[in-house]
Amino acid sequence: MNQPEATVGDLGEQGILDTILPLLDSQKANLGPGDDAGALSVQGSEILVSVDTLVENQDFKLVWPSGLEHRAYDIGWKSIAQNVSDINAMGGTTTGAVVSLSLPAQTSLQWVKDFAQGMADAISSLGAKELTILGGDLGKSTEISVTTTVLGECAHGKILRNGAKPGDVIAVAGRLGDAGAGLTVLEHRSDANKWSRAVRRIAEAQCKPAPPLGSGPRAAEAGAHAMMDISDGLVRDTSRLAKNSGISIDFNSEVLKKFAARLAPAAQLTGTDPMEWVLHGGEDFGLVAAFPNEDVVPEEFTVIGAAKARSGRRSLVTVDGKIATASAGFDHFN
Amino acid sequence: MNQPEATVGDLGEQGILDTILPLLDSQKANLGPGDDAGALSVQGSEILVSVDTLVENQDFKLVWPSGLEHRAYDIGWKSIAQNVSDINAMGGTTTGAVVSLSLPAQTSLQWVKDFAQGMADAISSLGAKELTILGGDLGKSTEISVTTTVLGECAHGKILRNGAKPGDVIAVAGRLGDAGAGLTVLEHRSDANKWSRAVRRIAEAQCKPAPPLGSGPRAAEAGAHAMMDISDGLVRDTSRLAKNSGISIDFNSEVLKKFAARLAPAAQLTGTDPMEWVLHGGEDFGLVAAFPNEDVVPEEFTVIGAAKARSGRRSLVTVDGKIATASAGFDHFN
Repeated sequence: MNQPEATVGDLGEQGILDTILPLLDSQKANLGPGDDAGALSVQGSEILVSVDTLVENQDFKLVWPSGLEHRAYDIGWKSIAQNVSDINAMGGTTTGAVVSLSLPAQTSLQWVKDFAQGMADAISSLGAKELTILGGDLGKSTEISVTTTVLGECAHGKILRNGAKPGDVIAVAGRLGDAGAGLTVLEHRSDANKWSRAVRRIAEAQCKPAPPLGSGPRAAEAGAHAMMDISDGLVRDTSRLAKNSGISIDFNSEVLKKFAARLAPAAQLTGTDPMEWVLHGGEDFGLVAAFPNEDVVPEEFTVIGAAKARSGRRSLVTVDGKIATASAGFDHFN
Repeated sequence: MNQPEATVGDLGEQGILDTILPLLDSQKANLGPGDDAGALSVQGSEILVSVDTLVENQDFKLVWPSGLEHRAYDIGWKSIAQNVSDINAMGGTTTGAVVSLSLPAQTSLQWVKDFAQGMADAISSLGAKELTILGGDLGKSTEISVTTTVLGECAHGKILRNGAKPGDVIAVAGRLGDAGAGLTVLEHRSDANKWSRAVRRIAEAQCKPAPPLGSGPRAAEAGAHAMMDISDGLVRDTSRLAKNSGISIDFNSEVLKKFAARLAPAAQLTGTDPMEWVLHGGEDFGLVAAFPNEDVVPEEFTVIGAAKARSGRRSLVTVDGKIATASAGFDHFN
């Protein structure tokens, strides 16, 4: 696969990173590429930095197969939400952001206004009250593309992916599976105008994710050993946490079923097993963290499993002891 | 023009900014949108932040009308060069960067390798030795788009656009007009294979700009009153500096002609008056700064004019006392 004539589509995200990272120097970073955010020391203080891009027809569709129009407001909202989530996932708070917006020349001024209003409302509604907009870049393109970079800081030291230990309890905060169910609903060819209120709310979880800001710093203060946000799916993301920490993780299906039960309206509409969304749906930007014991887990977290010693060389993610397929979930190039 | 049904193409960059910025809160920034970089205080230290995006067919063409292929290496180089220039223009040094890369799935692995090598070489060759890569984002798109965000710091306090005073001398460091001449050459339908070495070097100034890193901090240390980088053309950018400072600026054509003379090979090939490139060509990422007097100007700067009190309400940019057309230069949406 690793021939120069291979394409980025052949390689996938990890293959591309394996190509790029050895060429670039990250030695002076406190924390280089590979976790939710990078970290740099500036005159004794540590700064967290994270970047994410939303591209038309990849990360959102202006009109979904269900007929629902994707509002500019929601795109602005999500560009803030997914970035502040990365800082939250380190146990930090977001202090500043810069935004680069590439737009087709025929984009309406109203679209731009709605986009900016969505950003502003996400900042205030999600509780990112320290976040200030520091600048940006505007340019022309044929497809809409939004790149937001956020800066943050940690009051209690940053929480990485590599600190979970056997015996830790694994807990989640925020939504789990809702955004994945919302995506299935949006892609489903049922008429959006006829959706029930419950289905509509699930679709909105995809368009307007709500990362649990505040829960990241609280988990850090409570002594979490490891933490990350769930952007690509519970199994895929906890597999990364398990691998980075050198442990295995087992989930309790009884607890996960409670998350699945909430998604019944979307499951009925689309004929999907809702556990698929709980295990493999991305983009809720909830948190998954490893705590030393149940007593310290902040109350908004739900314990869903436990970290265990690896029995062989590989880190496994299991549900009731049975291996969860790690191949599902989201890869931007597959 | 300011109707909701107006498009971003109708409004241009300033019109779009005038729409977005009132909706977003920049009050907690030390310096919000509008200068080369934004600034934020973190635990007593000041961080500079800047972001720029390069989009295929807008900021570069994979194959130019001259037949020259635009190398991935040069795109990686430029994405670093134009961003470190923004920090240089504040009198600062770049400490960290994150990169978001959106690529069509059929992009070759070799393209990605060359791109990363161009970034790495720009960091070392331009002298951005403190710059470390902190992370990034990868995603799929139909057109290549690269967004780089850089962080920096200032040892001597940041230099803004608004501090020039009547009587200041105006000086530039770095190339002036070369990248503009390079763009004309690349767009010209002459066979790139038959170019002289001199023409080839001018074309390279567009693809591989060389911001004078080090000159920004030296100007700050020397007591510059105001500074910015020349990314959209000398007249357009110094008009911004003049307006922000509440002064007018007069250039000396004799000095500017010396910069134009260096571009003779491109002028002959394309039938262009080279003073057009000196006055209106962008993307050299040289510096223009206002110093209190000639004696403090660092030696790599060339004095090209003087700041004067405004005679009326408007800030004017003149050459030998005659008004320079401010309407030329680069607007991403016009």
